[in-house]
Amino acid sequence: MTEIRDDSISIALDAMGGDSAPDVVIEGANLVLSGVVPCDGKVHFSIYGKKEEVLPVLAKYKLVEANSVFVDVSDAVSSSDRPSYALRHRRRSSMWHAVEDLKKGLVSAVVSAGNTGALMAISRHLLGTIHSIDRPAIAVAMPSQKSSFVVLDIGANIECSADALLQFAIMGVAFAKAILGRTDPKVGLLNVGSEEVKGTYAVQEAFSLMRAAKSKMDFYGYIEAEEVFKGEVDVVVADGFSGNIMLKTTEAVANLLMSLFKGVVKSSITAKIAACMLKPSVRKTMELVDPKLYNGAMLVGLNGVVVKSHGSADGKAYACAIKTAVHSARYAIVSKIASEISEMG
Amino acid sequence: MTEIRDDSISIALDAMGGDSAPDVVIEGANLVLSGVVPCDGKVHFSIYGKKEEVLPVLAKYKLVEANSVFVDVSDAVSSSDRPSYALRHRRRSSMWHAVEDLKKGLVSAVVSAGNTGALMAISRHLLGTIHSIDRPAIAVAMPSQKSSFVVLDIGANIECSADALLQFAIMGVAFAKAILGRTDPKVGLLNVGSEEVKGTYAVQEAFSLMRAAKSKMDFYGYIEAEEVFKGEVDVVVADGFSGNIMLKTTEAVANLLMSLFKGVVKSSITAKIAACMLKPSVRKTMELVDPKLYNGAMLVGLNGVVVKSHGSADGKAYACAIKTAVHSARYAIVSKIASEISEMG
Repeated sequence: MTEIRDDSISIALDAMGGDSAPDVVIEGANLVLSGVVPCDGKVHFSIYGKKEEVLPVLAKYKLVEANSVFVDVSDAVSSSDRPSYALRHRRRSSMWHAVEDLKKGLVSAVVSAGNTGALMAISRHLLGTIHSIDRPAIAVAMPSQKSSFVVLDIGANIECSADALLQFAIMGVAFAKAILGRTDPKVGLLNVGSEEVKGTYAVQEAFSLMRAAKSKMDFYGYIEAEEVFKGEVDVVVADGFSGNIMLKTTEAVANLLMSLFKGVVKSSITAKIAACMLKPSVRKTMELVDPKLYNGAMLVGLNGVVVKSHGSADGKAYACAIKTAVHSARYAIVSKIASEISEMG
Repeated sequence: MTEIRDDSISIALDAMGGDSAPDVVIEGANLVLSGVVPCDGKVHFSIYGKKEEVLPVLAKYKLVEANSVFVDVSDAVSSSDRPSYALRHRRRSSMWHAVEDLKKGLVSAVVSAGNTGALMAISRHLLGTIHSIDRPAIAVAMPSQKSSFVVLDIGANIECSADALLQFAIMGVAFAKAILGRTDPKVGLLNVGSEEVKGTYAVQEAFSLMRAAKSKMDFYGYIEAEEVFKGEVDVVVADGFSGNIMLKTTEAVANLLMSLFKGVVKSSITAKIAACMLKPSVRKTMELVDPKLYNGAMLVGLNGVVVKSHGSADGKAYACAIKTAVHSARYAIVSKIASEISEMG
């Protein structure tokens, strides 16, 4: 388990992961240090990468250079690596070294925009899971009409037992407390209807387990997307397949509507003028649901804070992933999950 | 199999199904007959319901009264009925009589906004499935950036074998030809990534089956939501659980963004004026993705055309469900699916 030393927190950045690495990684760090994307308390970085690629970028960002340690590595995980391949053959990669330093307690959290499967495999191998957690999950915050919610799993576990879904619920409660600041998070189980007879066998069994744990957890019952986006719950529990479908559909529909709207704006002079008039109010509202602000999925259930950024994140989005890592480490989310689990028995 | 007699087509309407039945049902029929929602060729209706509830509404819509036959029934399926209960105890319901008349060839298609599970069970029981189709599915058209696509299954089959997914693909191809007017529909298999190692065992096996059928079907491979909404394929194949999650998430996200946008418009006088200026262009674009226009899910794989309307549909949306039923019957989609199946071997 990681330990927070003094006021400043050290975050490991995998400078080789993501579509626009290392530029976006260093830019994200710069936005955090310069206060554009503010984090709780002081932050410094350990940056892992190949020196010929990273140092020229670092030289452009003096603030990052002054507040980080650079660790030169000889290899990088590729986006096409299978997890098992990365585990055997990428031990000299930036990702591996970053997670290893987390294990050693040299940093408080890791952020990577690289290969998700490899990141999970390496993290699980090096850090291990929290006592009595069988399968770590990937959790991400998303916006709702009221505020936001966390959904897990979004892709680590394609097929899930009822027990695994119950564990996701418990980890989700800890995430909602740590990252979303909720005091008594409400948990919903994603399903295709609200009647008890609906859903797969695993989902129905998970319903019984969660209902039985109701004294220890505020269980809403089955939930569908409409109620989710209305903000009825703080935690949405799903297997990694349907959680992933929900996340990707949300992004795709938002993009479709935005691009249709942009088409409308370009369609006439009147529309262009009207759009300019609307811009300030639209910007304010759209910031609430800006996908960039929700970047940073957490690998929960591990003995350490590992945050996955979207591979296509830009600097601002990457900075938000760093912010998630900082908050999780400061809140000591790993020990919070461990104590939630032991309280639940 | 239903038979189309002369130019006018007869559609059975379950006047007791849906949140606002029978009003919305009759209103929908009126919109079709008055040409507000135009259908291919002449249409008349057989309307099934309790006379004390339906006749007062019919009296208000003279055009519908003049172009329909009313069938008085003594019972209705409830939204809380389990399929097995409806099958045993609702034989005097409007839903049962409508499907029975389809079976007898007295009508060419059935439209109902009632209990989906009961509609599937009754239809399957009375009509049977097309030769070599094991499990009927529910298919619905959705908008994309380019035009539209059909997704199936959206909820009839919660867990699916690879064989079932292949059959959905074949039925989807027939639907895309009949309802979307595509000549050589492209088929994508919904998954959580594009690499071959991704997804459940059933999805991976379905991939192999579809690839093997590539000479007979234009198979795109795995697809994720982003490509789906960009319009890369005409048919999206999914199990009923994830297909349902995708459909419901789409509706919920669209509703969330619309309600945020309405909030923006109300936020200031400037925004109100700008919104008025934008209205004509927005309306034109939004019509392309208006969920009402996509109302009308088809129960495919049955020996007859059965269309399910959204329970909360309004008159216009209900009329669109009728339109789907009319087109499916005119195109003889049932025999088209049967011949696609036999061609595929």
